[in-house]
Amino acid sequence: MGQITTRSPFTPDSLPRLLPIEGVRFATAEAGIKYRSRTDLMVAVLDEGTTAAGVLTQSKTASAPVLLCREHLKGGAARLLIVNSGNANAFTGKKGREAVEITVEAGAKAAGCAAGEVFVASTGVIGEPLDAGKFAHLLDALVRDATPDAFELAARAIMTTDTYPKLATRTARIGGVEVAINGFCKGAGMIAPDMATMLAFIFTDAAIGSEALQALLSEHVETTFNSMTIDGDTSTSDTCLLFATGAAEARGQARVTDAADPALADFSAALHDLMRDLAIQVAKDGEGLSKFVTFVVEGAESVPAARRIALACANSPILKTAIAGEDPNWGRVVMAVGKAGEAADRDKLAIWFGPYCVARDGERAGEYDEATVAAYMKNREIVIRVNAGVGEAAAHVWTCDLTHDYVSINADYRS
Amino acid sequence: MGQITTRSPFTPDSLPRLLPIEGVRFATAEAGIKYRSRTDLMVAVLDEGTTAAGVLTQSKTASAPVLLCREHLKGGAARLLIVNSGNANAFTGKKGREAVEITVEAGAKAAGCAAGEVFVASTGVIGEPLDAGKFAHLLDALVRDATPDAFELAARAIMTTDTYPKLATRTARIGGVEVAINGFCKGAGMIAPDMATMLAFIFTDAAIGSEALQALLSEHVETTFNSMTIDGDTSTSDTCLLFATGAAEARGQARVTDAADPALADFSAALHDLMRDLAIQVAKDGEGLSKFVTFVVEGAESVPAARRIALACANSPILKTAIAGEDPNWGRVVMAVGKAGEAADRDKLAIWFGPYCVARDGERAGEYDEATVAAYMKNREIVIRVNAGVGEAAAHVWTCDLTHDYVSINADYRS
Repeated sequence: MGQITTRSPFTPDSLPRLLPIEGVRFATAEAGIKYRSRTDLMVAVLDEGTTAAGVLTQSKTASAPVLLCREHLKGGAARLLIVNSGNANAFTGKKGREAVEITVEAGAKAAGCAAGEVFVASTGVIGEPLDAGKFAHLLDALVRDATPDAFELAARAIMTTDTYPKLATRTARIGGVEVAINGFCKGAGMIAPDMATMLAFIFTDAAIGSEALQALLSEHVETTFNSMTIDGDTSTSDTCLLFATGAAEARGQARVTDAADPALADFSAALHDLMRDLAIQVAKDGEGLSKFVTFVVEGAESVPAARRIALACANSPILKTAIAGEDPNWGRVVMAVGKAGEAADRDKLAIWFGPYCVARDGERAGEYDEATVAAYMKNREIVIRVNAGVGEAAAHVWTCDLTHDYVSINADYRS
Repeated sequence: MGQITTRSPFTPDSLPRLLPIEGVRFATAEAGIKYRSRTDLMVAVLDEGTTAAGVLTQSKTASAPVLLCREHLKGGAARLLIVNSGNANAFTGKKGREAVEITVEAGAKAAGCAAGEVFVASTGVIGEPLDAGKFAHLLDALVRDATPDAFELAARAIMTTDTYPKLATRTARIGGVEVAINGFCKGAGMIAPDMATMLAFIFTDAAIGSEALQALLSEHVETTFNSMTIDGDTSTSDTCLLFATGAAEARGQARVTDAADPALADFSAALHDLMRDLAIQVAKDGEGLSKFVTFVVEGAESVPAARRIALACANSPILKTAIAGEDPNWGRVVMAVGKAGEAADRDKLAIWFGPYCVARDGERAGEYDEATVAAYMKNREIVIRVNAGVGEAAAHVWTCDLTHDYVSINADYRS
């Protein structure tokens, strides 16, 4: 990792300021799991009554922490989140399960809660045994010293190849009472639908039952984190957890237990907006990227079909390298649409690069001017829009280009 | 294309010598379709009685020539093949269909055959109108002057980003009579199952009915051209055609019309071997490659499941860049197996890099020695074997690594 010094061109000038959320406290530590001279351990301490929801990787080789989260989500209650970076504790067999058990046991003791209320996430190298002994003894002090205003420190502690921490904050009203939503995430490579190697943690003081919370999270994941891809790879560790402390109940917010309750409309919109913000931040920190790219597919038979066409574009190495080279090679868009396997009418297909129509009715547009579109390709943010010509459904996917730096970063990750 | 000078490290020292096949003659020309100072037009003139079989791209945006071949294959007879490089005549709408019609009409006239006996293939840039006027007038002379011993010239005329021509030859016996099979192909990028941007043409003097010929070709495509991927992209133009002139009938070969006829066993094996040879030559000329990689997946639930797992590995950018960096990052193999979506037992999974077992029973192998496996990664040919631990089925996929040169080549293809 030492050689990765290039920062994303989309590194924000300043980070959003996240105000404390009642009922959540954070602490971080340098546990020396893999990295030196940086934090690699983060805990979030949650007040009693916190509900939990989660979306986890669909990988068939999911990590030990993912399996634990899946199990503990059934309880719907959370008191402690423990996250380490540097080691994914994935494909570590019996030792991996034991490391998770040691962590959970030490965490439950430190937080004075049930084991089922402890959540764990790990990110980093796959296949190396994780030594829980490196950090289990730190948990007592971390839980004790956790503070509410440490969102940025928490976000930094979970980074791996990220070049900047990713944070977002929103407010919403539930029945006239203002609630806050804060979130942070990590992820820069091995990012694709099914959550990739992304870890995302979202916290709110709203009082929402765990089933309703789960319904909202599952719905919004589709159009946010699952509509974003860096390289089409899916990690063993992807975890998105949403915690609601319920502290707003003391301020008069009536607890909501049905996701369809109109009282949640504003909250749902704000949550979606925050998740969208975080997903775009991940795509804008794609390993080695020089451009942020949005593929919009319209005129498809169904929303899943539109998303699959957009993903075929967003995961095409040959199209992504053309974008890196600022080449308006729209023929490769035609290729990617064709390979998606979804219905598309070759003779009605239309393609736009930004505002410029490059093809319509299945051939090059009459007004196409190579120099104009080539000039557009010099932008840092590129929007490519496709109309498949067979229906009304639409979807988008965010991604980035494929550059020399991507190869450099991933050819030598472990050294 | 001018900047692409690096030759594949697998460029053969010498090309195989292909002897003439009775009933086939070739001619090439510099038609100036896109390239200058090189041949870009090839015709194969086939004797009367030639049967034809083909496998074509599954792309939903298939090129005009692909649609024509699909139509003409229904007749099962061929007299002329016309191939151009430099322009794929894909996504060219009505103009594209017209260019094909002009080509076929001129070809049929030149060869004195029916339009339905003319086959056309095009490869190169997508979306640019192809001007058939550049070469239709050349067809008379090409058909007249075609010679039987021009396989290498023919193979060179259809190249695009290939760094060497790809040729193979085999012989087989059908009922005691020796027949020959010669083939050549092109393809270096945008190569993936469904035939990618590959053009492959195979010729034999055997006398085999078109239905039997089609059955053999379809069967062998699965484990040869469709078990090879460069970048997971699928082109609009992929075409594999097999022509049998039947000239061996005059030497006493009894015509075979049933693919299951035991008389075809030796021919079928030789055809498979030739197609395998050509497919490997394509993978070994993958754009920018430094290593040839074979993924072998065993212990899967079914052959398609095994192939999908192997393809998930072979199309993973993050795994392919690790291989380029000579990093034995087997954790990324675990990731790729997990993302394939096929059954795999995480706790029985085993992985080998060459002869070295790096993981078994779902965790790092006890004997794993990083230095030993890192030394293995310095080889030019890498074999990675996975046992999914759930069944008996196996499959392989050939591919190459993902390098800086791949990015360079594709970032600026059109300039």
